[in-house]
Amino acid sequence: MEIGIKEQWIAFIHQLQDDICHGLEVVDGKAVFVEDAWQRPEGGGGKTRVIANGNAIEKGGVNTSVVFGEVTDPMRTQLKIDGHSWFAAGLSLVIHPANPFAPTVHANYRMFELYNAGQQVIDRWFGGGTDLTPYYLLEEDAIHFHATYKQACDQFDQGFYPRFKKECDNYFVNWHRSNERRGIGGIFYDYQKPSDEKDVNFWIGFAKTCGYAFLDAYVPILGRRMHSPFEPQHKHWQEIRRGRYVEFNLVHDRGTLFGLKTNGRIESILMSLPPTVRFEYNYQPVAGSPEDKLLQACLNPVDWV
Amino acid sequence: MEIGIKEQWIAFIHQLQDDICHGLEVVDGKAVFVEDAWQRPEGGGGKTRVIANGNAIEKGGVNTSVVFGEVTDPMRTQLKIDGHSWFAAGLSLVIHPANPFAPTVHANYRMFELYNAGQQVIDRWFGGGTDLTPYYLLEEDAIHFHATYKQACDQFDQGFYPRFKKECDNYFVNWHRSNERRGIGGIFYDYQKPSDEKDVNFWIGFAKTCGYAFLDAYVPILGRRMHSPFEPQHKHWQEIRRGRYVEFNLVHDRGTLFGLKTNGRIESILMSLPPTVRFEYNYQPVAGSPEDKLLQACLNPVDWV
Repeated sequence: MEIGIKEQWIAFIHQLQDDICHGLEVVDGKAVFVEDAWQRPEGGGGKTRVIANGNAIEKGGVNTSVVFGEVTDPMRTQLKIDGHSWFAAGLSLVIHPANPFAPTVHANYRMFELYNAGQQVIDRWFGGGTDLTPYYLLEEDAIHFHATYKQACDQFDQGFYPRFKKECDNYFVNWHRSNERRGIGGIFYDYQKPSDEKDVNFWIGFAKTCGYAFLDAYVPILGRRMHSPFEPQHKHWQEIRRGRYVEFNLVHDRGTLFGLKTNGRIESILMSLPPTVRFEYNYQPVAGSPEDKLLQACLNPVDWV
Repeated sequence: MEIGIKEQWIAFIHQLQDDICHGLEVVDGKAVFVEDAWQRPEGGGGKTRVIANGNAIEKGGVNTSVVFGEVTDPMRTQLKIDGHSWFAAGLSLVIHPANPFAPTVHANYRMFELYNAGQQVIDRWFGGGTDLTPYYLLEEDAIHFHATYKQACDQFDQGFYPRFKKECDNYFVNWHRSNERRGIGGIFYDYQKPSDEKDVNFWIGFAKTCGYAFLDAYVPILGRRMHSPFEPQHKHWQEIRRGRYVEFNLVHDRGTLFGLKTNGRIESILMSLPPTVRFEYNYQPVAGSPEDKLLQACLNPVDWV
């Protein structure tokens, strides 16, 4: 049955990739995804699909990868992964809209297996999540996004949404900036190991439900904000906040670190970085301004539903 | 004599800060440095001096810091620093010119002391260097920059320039991008512990000579390139390459890591990040173009003198 689990997971992420790319192309109405298929010398490969300069999307990627190899010393020491060989497969997406009133979004669903020298599975876990990074806090959008994932979670365990919402608030944090979050969160779960009560099928089903919830959670927001009128000052603030996105992804993100330590395809890993970014010394929004309102929500996570 | 060494070093970095800021203001002719003095709760502080939107300089900082404290667990495990308490003082500068034909420059000169529980010095070292990050390879500038530091080094040890030039080429490397350097180097030295032959005064003298060489090495280049005519395509390439600067500083730079792990003042540490940056998926310059010529010099370091 080991093959069956991996095959089921791989089929899921590829179908989800197709469906999400299609949904985003429809709302964008101009740009289309371009695929780069790549292979990893040490084992496996991926399908990177990128989109740029659309009506709605300034830069984005919806990637899948199915990779495997031996556990190397950097993985052992820096990623604390102990075993003989490993397998990882997942979907990862980041969408950076052009319009500063449309939020950036990220999603990732992954499974990981670890083997002993005899190729037996000695560990297996699932992880995933989706989080929203607005530049202006539009409460209607925040509530819609969180409510969609709460509904998805509640089908599996009433405790999931509050727990994974909190894990999200505690993961996407620029610890070096007084614990400022990169956005307003969503859900995040990691190292979920199948048990008798919540077996492999449970976790695959959960990832499927959350994965497909993306289209309900994000596409309507993008659709209604992509044409919002904006001024250069709004774009300026978007680019300042995108700088925080860069800081999180390059300094803290475990996914990026895993990619760099396992000789992943660098352009696929760094696809997540925003298209245009500003770093200004000690930029502080005016207290009480719409920019400050967003910042305060990043400093003090809100319970949206 | 311990107090004397630290005092001499602190006086040097503050004088160098004044002199470099003055030299840069003169060539810029418009913008002036603004100082933010800050204190570190755990001990010490610094003087951050920033400049922005000048005739020549789009964003820059010339900072000094004099900091000390107890060795913490993150320092022990992540920075491999073993002792009871520590002291560090240095000058650090990064200048990002607006004109894409003018190179970015970085310099840093620092001393570090480590103490046992009885406050005795158990280790002391010096480090420093300066490196150039052009966006277009102008050989005249590259030769002038390297020749200036070779001349500075040769006054102290004929072996220094070749050795520290090589260390520089091996330090400012985006290892995750097939060992692409962030620029065309300069000199870099670290962990230089005083010996009978090369005592504390030798290393302070060397830092002074290299520190003051900055004005000869860089200001004439900035002066002659700040008015070069350029097109949007040149600015675009500058912003792409600035992305590599961000990647190096946030993923690899030991100075940034040290700042983050020792609760340094974040705006002073990240002052080094460029003002406007672009991240485009898999951007590749046309083979044989001026952009590609720069890239090739970053992939294969050149002996300029």
